[in-house]
Amino acid sequence: MRPFNFSAGPAALPEEVLQTAAAEMLDWHGSGMSVMEMSHRGREFASIFEAAEHSLRTLLAVPSNFRILFMQGGGLAENAIVPMNLSRGGLVDFVVTGSWSKKSLKEAGRYCDASAAGSNEGNRHTDVPAPATWALRSGLSYVHVCTNETIDGVEMQTLPDLAALGCDAPLVIDCSSHILSRSIDWSRVGLAFAGAQKNIGPAGLTLVFVREDLLGHALSICPSAFDYRVVAENNSMFNTPPTYAIYIAGLVFDWVQRQGGVAEMERRAITKAELLYGYLDNNGGFYANRVAKPARSRMNVPFFLSDESLNDAFLAGAREAGLLQLKGHKSVGGMRASIYNAMPLQGVQALVNHMQDFARRHG
Amino acid sequence: MRPFNFSAGPAALPEEVLQTAAAEMLDWHGSGMSVMEMSHRGREFASIFEAAEHSLRTLLAVPSNFRILFMQGGGLAENAIVPMNLSRGGLVDFVVTGSWSKKSLKEAGRYCDASAAGSNEGNRHTDVPAPATWALRSGLSYVHVCTNETIDGVEMQTLPDLAALGCDAPLVIDCSSHILSRSIDWSRVGLAFAGAQKNIGPAGLTLVFVREDLLGHALSICPSAFDYRVVAENNSMFNTPPTYAIYIAGLVFDWVQRQGGVAEMERRAITKAELLYGYLDNNGGFYANRVAKPARSRMNVPFFLSDESLNDAFLAGAREAGLLQLKGHKSVGGMRASIYNAMPLQGVQALVNHMQDFARRHG
Repeated sequence: MRPFNFSAGPAALPEEVLQTAAAEMLDWHGSGMSVMEMSHRGREFASIFEAAEHSLRTLLAVPSNFRILFMQGGGLAENAIVPMNLSRGGLVDFVVTGSWSKKSLKEAGRYCDASAAGSNEGNRHTDVPAPATWALRSGLSYVHVCTNETIDGVEMQTLPDLAALGCDAPLVIDCSSHILSRSIDWSRVGLAFAGAQKNIGPAGLTLVFVREDLLGHALSICPSAFDYRVVAENNSMFNTPPTYAIYIAGLVFDWVQRQGGVAEMERRAITKAELLYGYLDNNGGFYANRVAKPARSRMNVPFFLSDESLNDAFLAGAREAGLLQLKGHKSVGGMRASIYNAMPLQGVQALVNHMQDFARRHG
Repeated sequence: MRPFNFSAGPAALPEEVLQTAAAEMLDWHGSGMSVMEMSHRGREFASIFEAAEHSLRTLLAVPSNFRILFMQGGGLAENAIVPMNLSRGGLVDFVVTGSWSKKSLKEAGRYCDASAAGSNEGNRHTDVPAPATWALRSGLSYVHVCTNETIDGVEMQTLPDLAALGCDAPLVIDCSSHILSRSIDWSRVGLAFAGAQKNIGPAGLTLVFVREDLLGHALSICPSAFDYRVVAENNSMFNTPPTYAIYIAGLVFDWVQRQGGVAEMERRAITKAELLYGYLDNNGGFYANRVAKPARSRMNVPFFLSDESLNDAFLAGAREAGLLQLKGHKSVGGMRASIYNAMPLQGVQALVNHMQDFARRHG
């Protein structure tokens, strides 16, 4: 059995996907080529690309007035690319819920008047400010939220309804670290982006879902390769796309579909999260998660040992038990278990078993 | 035997590299993880990254005052990223030798006063304008050339010596499609960039070699993820790098080293190019290459049938003979054989055999 890999990203992939990739490495479907060796404009890769896009559109029920763009640069590049495309140099409000939305706000300030309409910084990024408290300005180009904070383990359980808040600006969501683990209410969204390296595939691929009416407003300093209109008009082939990463993503989409789709992924995510948080809340104080219950992420679970001098021993024991990459982000410390779609329930159970065993021996 | 793949990029990779990648797909070196599943900050990927950078630096004898950056977006993104970092909004001269340098010139115009100091457009991109004829302006931020034009099959056999032309600006070279096929005279270069998808590895990785004194001058609108100084200070880990593509690139670097290094790649490239051009120049007029002999690319060989109505039959026969992806770029037409490092001499011989056979049957 392979170890259980709790990396926050690049993260574990379904074993079946890796097996297919290995088997097809030298010869994809009798083409005589590895997918890595195919021209992005040839019929073989075209079929891979179209199938991947179709599967993704189906899995997330993406409406026909949204374009799906396959780009590069990850979330950190999108922090600049989104305002270059959508801000029109005007006002943009952010809701700060953790490290990622903070970074997004800071980078956007290069291109527009960017401001925080709400923040959980006073609560050390452990909750989601209620939308009714957001101080949204009028005349906004868009509102940006990060719907799952990978580092802080904070997740929005529902998307804000900006219209109900009296705001008619489009909502931009950074859903990098929980995409495909729950459905998306597209009626509330103008643009969504996600780095692939958590729930989709290898690092180096970024997915952007953009409502068509938001195309065509890029600032003049926006590089052509990152102008959503240019990318859309060229079907994500303006520059050479990351072909192999797209192929792996397609295999992951097919795997999700075979498991039962996003609804099944969500059901499993709830089960896994309940198991882990259930133990974190009932272990006699040896371990703790600090996030408010309604804001806890189903994907990224940071936790802390009450005696932090045991951290290294905990990680060493975990590694021996076949539980990998549990060390917390350097900015937060402690531990973090990322339990994305590819993590089976069995892996979360193995983690809880190790936690119980370790607490018994060191408690 | 695998077919011979003449794609211009993404392009053929050494079979040994693909075999290693397949064998290590589910478990890299006993780590229990695929390389795709590793945190970019973990010790396993750190060792892969450091080894790849070290091999590349050794292969190309990159001086210690150059940083090697592992980035994303390909050559088309660099067309914006270079002027955002190096132009300081001032004057930049380009030498137009084909489709790629034309695109670079056009994109740079968003960020600086970009102008053509020389051009082969009047000669339909079939030669390289002699450096002595370049009308370089004074006070330039840099001079940009494309040292191998993938689409037009035009290659600079030596780098221009700007100092000898009375120009003290740094030289920027786009060497995407011939990197690792010949040595680079770094004393003449300020910055070099290359998309990986020709001679290095999978699409989605861009290599930038930048002299340290050129860091730190980015325009304020340059996205952090594409600011060379930020990338350099974070050892190419400011945003998550394309980890799997870097791993494959490292395998390719090791393969080049085992073959005998860049000098051996160059020797082979000369042999392969002489075989193919030799036939193109001596076949009774059935096929022709239109590039001036001193400017012919060793990597990308466009050629035309005198009777273009036979193009489809030529391609179909080639496919039957196990010769893939020979169709020319849509902007040029005809055929193109890209014979990068991974193409064995045997493959070029098989192509010439097919060309002879086809000419005999249709001549």
